[in-house]
Amino acid sequence: MIIYGKNVIKEAVLNRRPIYKLYVDEKTTDQKMLYFLKDHHMTYEIKTKNELNHLTERALHQGFVADVKPYAYFDLESILKKDEIQRFVILDGVEDPHNLGAILRTAEAAGFDGILMSKKNQVPLNATVAKVSTGSIEHVPVILVSNINQAILSLQAKDVLVVGTDGQTEKTFKDIPLDRSLAIVLGNEGEGIRPLVKKNCDLLVKIPMKGKINSLNVSVAAGIMMYATLK
Amino acid sequence: MIIYGKNVIKEAVLNRRPIYKLYVDEKTTDQKMLYFLKDHHMTYEIKTKNELNHLTERALHQGFVADVKPYAYFDLESILKKDEIQRFVILDGVEDPHNLGAILRTAEAAGFDGILMSKKNQVPLNATVAKVSTGSIEHVPVILVSNINQAILSLQAKDVLVVGTDGQTEKTFKDIPLDRSLAIVLGNEGEGIRPLVKKNCDLLVKIPMKGKINSLNVSVAAGIMMYATLK
Repeated sequence: MIIYGKNVIKEAVLNRRPIYKLYVDEKTTDQKMLYFLKDHHMTYEIKTKNELNHLTERALHQGFVADVKPYAYFDLESILKKDEIQRFVILDGVEDPHNLGAILRTAEAAGFDGILMSKKNQVPLNATVAKVSTGSIEHVPVILVSNINQAILSLQAKDVLVVGTDGQTEKTFKDIPLDRSLAIVLGNEGEGIRPLVKKNCDLLVKIPMKGKINSLNVSVAAGIMMYATLK
Repeated sequence: MIIYGKNVIKEAVLNRRPIYKLYVDEKTTDQKMLYFLKDHHMTYEIKTKNELNHLTERALHQGFVADVKPYAYFDLESILKKDEIQRFVILDGVEDPHNLGAILRTAEAAGFDGILMSKKNQVPLNATVAKVSTGSIEHVPVILVSNINQAILSLQAKDVLVVGTDGQTEKTFKDIPLDRSLAIVLGNEGEGIRPLVKKNCDLLVKIPMKGKINSLNVSVAAGIMMYATLK
């Protein structure tokens, strides 16, 4: 798959992702990035800006584009660890690649163990997601599941507390317990968490709203919720 | 100025912003929005999608575009209130309109009293900011200041505690005091808070980073910090 952007390509190199082709803008002035590539024995082809625009469908490629082995998905079983407090995010239909990328970035910074998302109605791990994640996509396991509700049951069977958001509940994100394994559920940008998924949560908390519009971007809500789980 | 997007225009109508012209896509199927406009006695011109694309420079206008009185900026003095706990955000050079829009949206939801930003090196209140704010731009006063450091001094003189972020400090966002007036300082996407501005803060806290990349989108960091100030 084609990826682009300096941070994303840098992390792909550092993480030893197979890179089939690497393309650099003939007019790049980023000596630091060029030294980085040289230090890591990366060879590349020189391209015009127009050629890179064409390869990336006019994305903000920053003059660095690569054709790499696609990002892999993980099995839930392979990342669940006994006798360790773990933290997950469950995405119930996040559609915007910018939101998914920002959520990956926050999950990496907050030390989360993985992101579960559905095979359906969910943006996949594409180049935009990678770019917005600033390379965090290399470090946060993403688990694709056939059924979110089934995945919630699997997590609950392993004693993971599943926490959703609901504007009508009394408890707030500050009431999330800090001393146990958790999964934070985040819903679709427009529709929120689906009713059955919400019903399957062990705990519902709200992010208090004190204005007139009272809606948060899902990646901002994700950040507030994820950081609320840290001591 | 030209604005676009359903939520933005809806809030402009509700907030009685002078609307000079209103344009609706000839093929819109959004009856709810049309009823809303009718209920509020708004007249509009029918346009083709191409005409709307042209008016908005191909933005995601959702079929609704308006020419309105530009968003006004406020004076710091006019929004400072004695004998009331207030909360502000100070932006030290946020460049991306998507970030400013998302910060406005969060500030509105978290009930913040205003956003201070510099006249220089700062994205202004434009149509993209309005769209991403989902109309929150109507409800959060924005104060343009000539000098961020001067503005910090003015706030401190009114007993507002100025809180910045610094990765090297011991205290975290959970140590922000909740019982007094506060201003949260957020830095530029690439450079962070400038050294002198950081030096002028009363309190520095960190958002703990537990990964390898360890960076947050500024609008996510803003959300974590803003909600950390709420009880």
